[in-house]
Amino acid sequence: MKNPSHTKEIHRLNRLIGQLEGIKRMIESGRYCPDILIQTKAIVSSIRSLETAILEKHIKCCVKNAIQSGTDGEEKVSELVNIFKTRIK
Amino acid sequence: MKNPSHTKEIHRLNRLIGQLEGIKRMIESGRYCPDILIQTKAIVSSIRSLETAILEKHIKCCVKNAIQSGTDGEEKVSELVNIFKTRIK
Amino acid sequence: MKNPSHTKEIHRLNRLIGQLEGIKRMIESGRYCPDILIQTKAIVSSIRSLETAILEKHIKCCVKNAIQSGTDGEEKVSELVNIFKTRIK
Amino acid sequence: MKNPSHTKEIHRLNRLIGQLEGIKRMIESGRYCPDILIQTKAIVSSIRSLETAILEKHIKCCVKNAIQSGTDGEEKVSELVNIFKTRIK
Repeated sequence: MKNPSHTKEIHRLNRLIGQLEGIKRMIESGRYCPDILIQTKAIVSSIRSLETAILEKHIKCCVKNAIQSGTDGEEKVSELVNIFKTRIK
Repeated sequence: MKNPSHTKEIHRLNRLIGQLEGIKRMIESGRYCPDILIQTKAIVSSIRSLETAILEKHIKCCVKNAIQSGTDGEEKVSELVNIFKTRIK
Repeated sequence: MKNPSHTKEIHRLNRLIGQLEGIKRMIESGRYCPDILIQTKAIVSSIRSLETAILEKHIKCCVKNAIQSGTDGEEKVSELVNIFKTRIK
Repeated sequence: MKNPSHTKEIHRLNRLIGQLEGIKRMIESGRYCPDILIQTKAIVSSIRSLETAILEKHIKCCVKNAIQSGTDGEEKVSELVNIFKTRIK
């Protein structure tokens, strides 16, 4: 049985796949390049939203619980700092 | 008949769709969030490569020809500057 | 008296100001644009490093302490998620 | 004598240096980290505007002229594509 809390993410991913299928059709029909780039930019934005949602859940549950329980708070904080280091723009 | 020059881009897009299907499976099986974020980062990198390839073709053919023929060089150059303005990191 | 823990950041900022003075000289002496862009890219990288250092301190002290003491952990976590939302690349 | 066309860029750079001096003061007086990050983000945006202005001049003069005159159009176009490759977000 599918975890109900994942429904939203799966829905976003299905929509992303639909957007990529749309770009395939644009390329196959020789559409104007700058128009294709507008669509790929929209896809990157959608992936960013998905990533932010995943990270938000991670910080609010996993990182917070680890710090509160005192089990592996240090490790989770270092891991989070590393995610920021590689993704900050 | 499919334009042979698009084969490479279509191949990249099919691989991207495969990567997104992989992320769906990761989410459905409750994989650790930072591991999912490593995969989404790889997808964003793949989209960037696709975009750069599309933009390269656009500059080397479309923009260059427009400037050489003197038809709508001004317009193509302004359009290119705008793409850069919205995409620079 | 200056807080000794800030010495490193102040040093980075002084170096950044020196880099910007260098770009002023490049522009004044009419240096080739792509060469100037290589220098501005280096400055953006330096600012990113500074930002990551600031954020690391913030997470490791401020956010962690707020979660552990239970005072305003919720607020600090939401604030952190918002920083990520606006800065993810 | 200073090239008048550079006045605007030099003005932007002086303002950027002023913004960095402001961040030094924020760090020295122990200001709240997320507030400092809002200011560093503003600086990155200012550098981006400067870079776009420099690139716009480069494309509209240098690249366009090289293509029109047929001297080193190929080279300028390749260089431009490389700038995009390293800077696209």
